[in-house]
Amino acid sequence: MSGLPWLVIVTGASRGLGRCLAQEAVRSIGKDHRMTLLLMARSESGLMETAASIRGMNSEDVTIEVQPVDLGNLSTLETSLQNAFSGLDARHYQRCVLFNNAGSLGELAPAMDLSFAGLREAVDLNITSAMWVTCAFVNLILPRWQQQQQQQGGDSGLAERPEGGAGQQQQSGDAQQQPNSADSQQPQQPPPPTEAGGSGSEGAAAASMPDVVVNISSLAAVKPFPTWAAYCAGKAARDMFHAALAAEHRASQLRVLSYAPGPLDTDMQARIRAADGCAPELRAFFATMQRDGALVRPSESAARCVRLVREGCWECGAHVDFFD
Amino acid sequence: MSGLPWLVIVTGASRGLGRCLAQEAVRSIGKDHRMTLLLMARSESGLMETAASIRGMNSEDVTIEVQPVDLGNLSTLETSLQNAFSGLDARHYQRCVLFNNAGSLGELAPAMDLSFAGLREAVDLNITSAMWVTCAFVNLILPRWQQQQQQQGGDSGLAERPEGGAGQQQQSGDAQQQPNSADSQQPQQPPPPTEAGGSGSEGAAAASMPDVVVNISSLAAVKPFPTWAAYCAGKAARDMFHAALAAEHRASQLRVLSYAPGPLDTDMQARIRAADGCAPELRAFFATMQRDGALVRPSESAARCVRLVREGCWECGAHVDFFD
Repeated sequence: MSGLPWLVIVTGASRGLGRCLAQEAVRSIGKDHRMTLLLMARSESGLMETAASIRGMNSEDVTIEVQPVDLGNLSTLETSLQNAFSGLDARHYQRCVLFNNAGSLGELAPAMDLSFAGLREAVDLNITSAMWVTCAFVNLILPRWQQQQQQQGGDSGLAERPEGGAGQQQQSGDAQQQPNSADSQQPQQPPPPTEAGGSGSEGAAAASMPDVVVNISSLAAVKPFPTWAAYCAGKAARDMFHAALAAEHRASQLRVLSYAPGPLDTDMQARIRAADGCAPELRAFFATMQRDGALVRPSESAARCVRLVREGCWECGAHVDFFD
Repeated sequence: MSGLPWLVIVTGASRGLGRCLAQEAVRSIGKDHRMTLLLMARSESGLMETAASIRGMNSEDVTIEVQPVDLGNLSTLETSLQNAFSGLDARHYQRCVLFNNAGSLGELAPAMDLSFAGLREAVDLNITSAMWVTCAFVNLILPRWQQQQQQQGGDSGLAERPEGGAGQQQQSGDAQQQPNSADSQQPQQPPPPTEAGGSGSEGAAAASMPDVVVNISSLAAVKPFPTWAAYCAGKAARDMFHAALAAEHRASQLRVLSYAPGPLDTDMQARIRAADGCAPELRAFFATMQRDGALVRPSESAARCVRLVREGCWECGAHVDFFD
């Protein structure tokens, strides 16, 4: 293996899809690239189990870092992320990937039966925290872009920050273009290089390989389900936040994906089936799926997700479903 | 004027669209119906100005209540709303309407330049609080539905709450229906009665007139704008929350609308034009609109919104734009 390692960060990595994403990243990416794998979640024991499950795979060139962090605690979130990222220098990596996966199902109940505490907790973790994790990740990888920009002496599409003020994003679009025209936010640059279609030596391809933010989404982001109002709203907010982020980075080295992993055979599905407040037809639907073995294996969905990251074959900012 | 009065609640009523919604409700609804108008916002002086602007209109039969409430302060929100609604008994009203309008533009900047405090403040007000205002409103009007249900001895489509547990929503859909089929969440009951198409005497029509939640939305709820990520996410979350609420009330007396009022000629537009962090092409676009007199007058948009409420001519849970 040659070249700089990859940095892969997985939130909610202590179980379920997060654990599978970590495992799949090692299985798929780790066979070709050295890697630093940063695992984050509230449960330290869960993270240790995930880490243990990875050792023994093709992980000789994988450095695993475990960071127990309560991402739902907004009063400590900024500091927690600063600490978790403090040992990382993006300039030492060929490519940085975030799987922004942490989230909770929250209360399932008709809106009128939701508790304020439950609603707030769900929004804090699923929206505010999830957005901030992405913001922190983009700031983490910024030095790498700046370095590349200097080395290449060209315009990487990176925003220039005026001194003493908030950053302004350089856009490639026509300033006179109607913002409500159907395609004004579509990416206008040619498709980014993929691993499959690299441009020769690994070093050359590596220099232009874009970083990736994967927002773990859901069908609930695009479809309202009764008794899932808070969960649906959280997923819709995340999708939209990441779509706007993608619109800011049309000409830069960041690619953004909202990936809906399908109805996974995890603890979350068990909770749905047992949730008194969940709409009966939804409980029945998922119970039938489980009985028929139609739920998606999280390892299979994680493999699809990691493949998407490696192949880069999606429109920046898009919502892609496991079943697409 | 005969029959019970209407209850109309407007949040963010101290200025801009909220003030216009209050004025237009009095102008349009107040000429036909007695009304209690509850105005809420953080600024007491702004609310007093709104109230003063209404007195002198056809407001002899309008009772104006002013409730200064900081809806963005989540530590007091539950209590604030309890207090604001404490004098109201929904059973004394023919119809209850909420204009869930309060919200803020927040920071406009590339996601990587957002501050955590600003992001959190925006989510607290635009998402958590806005959702909870709707939840509180639905609980406020619940006694009216229960009364009607008892009087009619029939099924009003209202959720039955099992004792000692979270409520379960009765759904009219087929329990075997795929939740991800394209039309499974569409309303399946006949269109509700409208004022225009009432069924005879006002009393009879009044008994079946549905209550209404209007979520003030935006084009930004359905379209990602660069440097508006947090604002877009907030509007997307609200739309989705209200769409899920609509899915819970397909067979009951609640109708839900997400109304995008268009680019309004208000303080908010002035802030966009002056925002250093806003994408240059968006600033230029809105500046051009303003120069050309193409921004929408808030009174005109408010009139359209109130007309939608009166006429009921939209699909429950839909996103309707001023320009539609």
